Amino acid sequence: MTNYKLALLGFGNVGRALAELLLRKQEELKREHDITFSVVGIATGSKGRAIAPAGLDLPVVLQTVQGGQSLEQFSKVSSTGSLEFIERCGADVLFENSPVNYETGQPAIDHIRTALNLGMHVATANKGPVVHAWRELKDLAKSKNRQFFHESAVMDGAPIFSLFRGALPAAQLTGFRAILNSTTNLILTRMENGDTFDAAVNYAQQIGIAETDPSGDVDGWDAAIKIAALATVLMNAPLKPQEIDRTGIRGINPAMIAEARAQGKRYKLICTAEKKDGKITGRVAPELIPNTSPFFNTEGTTSIVEFKTDVLGDLTLIESDPGPHTTAYGLLADFIHAVK
Amino acid sequence: MTNYKLALLGFGNVGRALAELLLRKQEELKREHDITFSVVGIATGSKGRAIAPAGLDLPVVLQTVQGGQSLEQFSKVSSTGSLEFIERCGADVLFENSPVNYETGQPAIDHIRTALNLGMHVATANKGPVVHAWRELKDLAKSKNRQFFHESAVMDGAPIFSLFRGALPAAQLTGFRAILNSTTNLILTRMENGDTFDAAVNYAQQIGIAETDPSGDVDGWDAAIKIAALATVLMNAPLKPQEIDRTGIRGINPAMIAEARAQGKRYKLICTAEKKDGKITGRVAPELIPNTSPFFNTEGTTSIVEFKTDVLGDLTLIESDPGPHTTAYGLLADFIHAVK
Repeated sequence: MTNYKLALLGFGNVGRALAELLLRKQEELKREHDITFSVVGIATGSKGRAIAPAGLDLPVVLQTVQGGQSLEQFSKVSSTGSLEFIERCGADVLFENSPVNYETGQPAIDHIRTALNLGMHVATANKGPVVHAWRELKDLAKSKNRQFFHESAVMDGAPIFSLFRGALPAAQLTGFRAILNSTTNLILTRMENGDTFDAAVNYAQQIGIAETDPSGDVDGWDAAIKIAALATVLMNAPLKPQEIDRTGIRGINPAMIAEARAQGKRYKLICTAEKKDGKITGRVAPELIPNTSPFFNTEGTTSIVEFKTDVLGDLTLIESDPGPHTTAYGLLADFIHAVK
Repeated sequence: MTNYKLALLGFGNVGRALAELLLRKQEELKREHDITFSVVGIATGSKGRAIAPAGLDLPVVLQTVQGGQSLEQFSKVSSTGSLEFIERCGADVLFENSPVNYETGQPAIDHIRTALNLGMHVATANKGPVVHAWRELKDLAKSKNRQFFHESAVMDGAPIFSLFRGALPAAQLTGFRAILNSTTNLILTRMENGDTFDAAVNYAQQIGIAETDPSGDVDGWDAAIKIAALATVLMNAPLKPQEIDRTGIRGINPAMIAEARAQGKRYKLICTAEKKDGKITGRVAPELIPNTSPFFNTEGTTSIVEFKTDVLGDLTLIESDPGPHTTAYGLLADFIHAVK
């Protein structure tokens, strides 16, 4: 039985869901996986940081944060910023879930690099470091005999990366098609039900799915980043989001949607990558989907990916009802994979 | 680099597809997985058995069998039956794909038991031994520090069993819904297109999908065996096929299909398992599927399974265009998993 010291950098919806999942799975991890843990550090965005080498009391921490109070009261070791938090927390495993700049992957890349250099395993739900520094961070992890995993970076906790890492040995991915952006998926559905584009965007903002500036979603950037992450890791093709042929959904108007409907079709924002003559290209664009396709009924926040390999027919995965708790599960799975 | 001696017991469509896949992946296995192999034994149903400790020449063997000739000419060691073949072949890994009796799991169970006792890993595409002797064979394998894998027993080479063995740690499967029998799926589609039940069965027999006695498919036995296999392995519930609440498709008539169509629905033979109050029950029966479900468009030989767990939303896998080559891939994946 090994006891692992865990640190959580980022304690928003995902970090808190991870804390809750760790509590719920504590007995099972011990019984089934010979894993015990203590959480020695938590760094929040606005409620301070706490480092406690003897372990923090997770239920109390969760209550404190939900009550709007600072975590500093529980800290036995001070830290003046995220990097110092990582250096001083003394963890074996860092869960990196801080806000990230998608153009640079920072500061997540610096956080992960620091943790790996200190000999920690790292699990992150951030796409940024996968797209901008995957090779470097993987190589660094390997040189330290540690793991850098990121299952929740695409399709939340659905086992996309671990599928090809483990369950599909000697399978070469030759391409994929996917719906990976739920905001545009929701906007298109709302437009089918009569909303204008602007009204649909407003609705998505109201329910907290779309950002105040919706361009990251509606112009296809979020989808392009996810294509880049999948291509980088699963096809060994370090595509950058800027290299993805990208068309968003601003060009779709109600008349087009009505015409599609009349043909029994729907517009969906489709992510594609394919290998042709040894070259891998990525594309995101609205496509007309016939009602015989499993993509046709992929609605709301559900995501779908169809993998093309050299050994199987099309293998499709659909993840329904994702949320912070499923992202948290991907992080937990990464932790278990890293230490086993 | 380790060289593994392989033996193939059963050399029908699947065994031959495996031989072809081994040839195609030989370089990749060496380069990416540090695995080399030689095939030291092949036992066919009607073309004899060959044991050659220095290795058989697979392209020549394939050509010989396709030409209708016996393999005995290549044998350096005689064997009078399947069990003696296993005892004398000297393999490290046995691929067990001989014809099986679904009521008993024999003679596959005896084959696997013999191979494990001799210290071989075993991979099989047969459901019979999984349903009738999984616990015993798993325990025996463990006691010998060997592996007994069966990825291709359900949904061909799609990574169903390895998903829960590896990619989804600490996830508890609480139930599933699936379409797992392609013959009934095809018959129902033919009936939607105007065939009577008998004409649809005849068609399925003509193209080689249905047996001369179609009752294994149309009465739901094949589906029940697959439910039992999944429940046994993934839910730790050793259900027997006889314990599955079973209704086949004989009760579906053209009038019912027309009425379903008018409602925008379709009949599908649905496999279900669910855990309720700690008890796991299985059921196979035709169900009316609405056109918003991913099951609606699952046609022909495509199969689909929707997993319900305690950590994710519904996770659905669809395998399109299966065939002997995808079954062979599941066996290859089992081999790699076993020796890594």
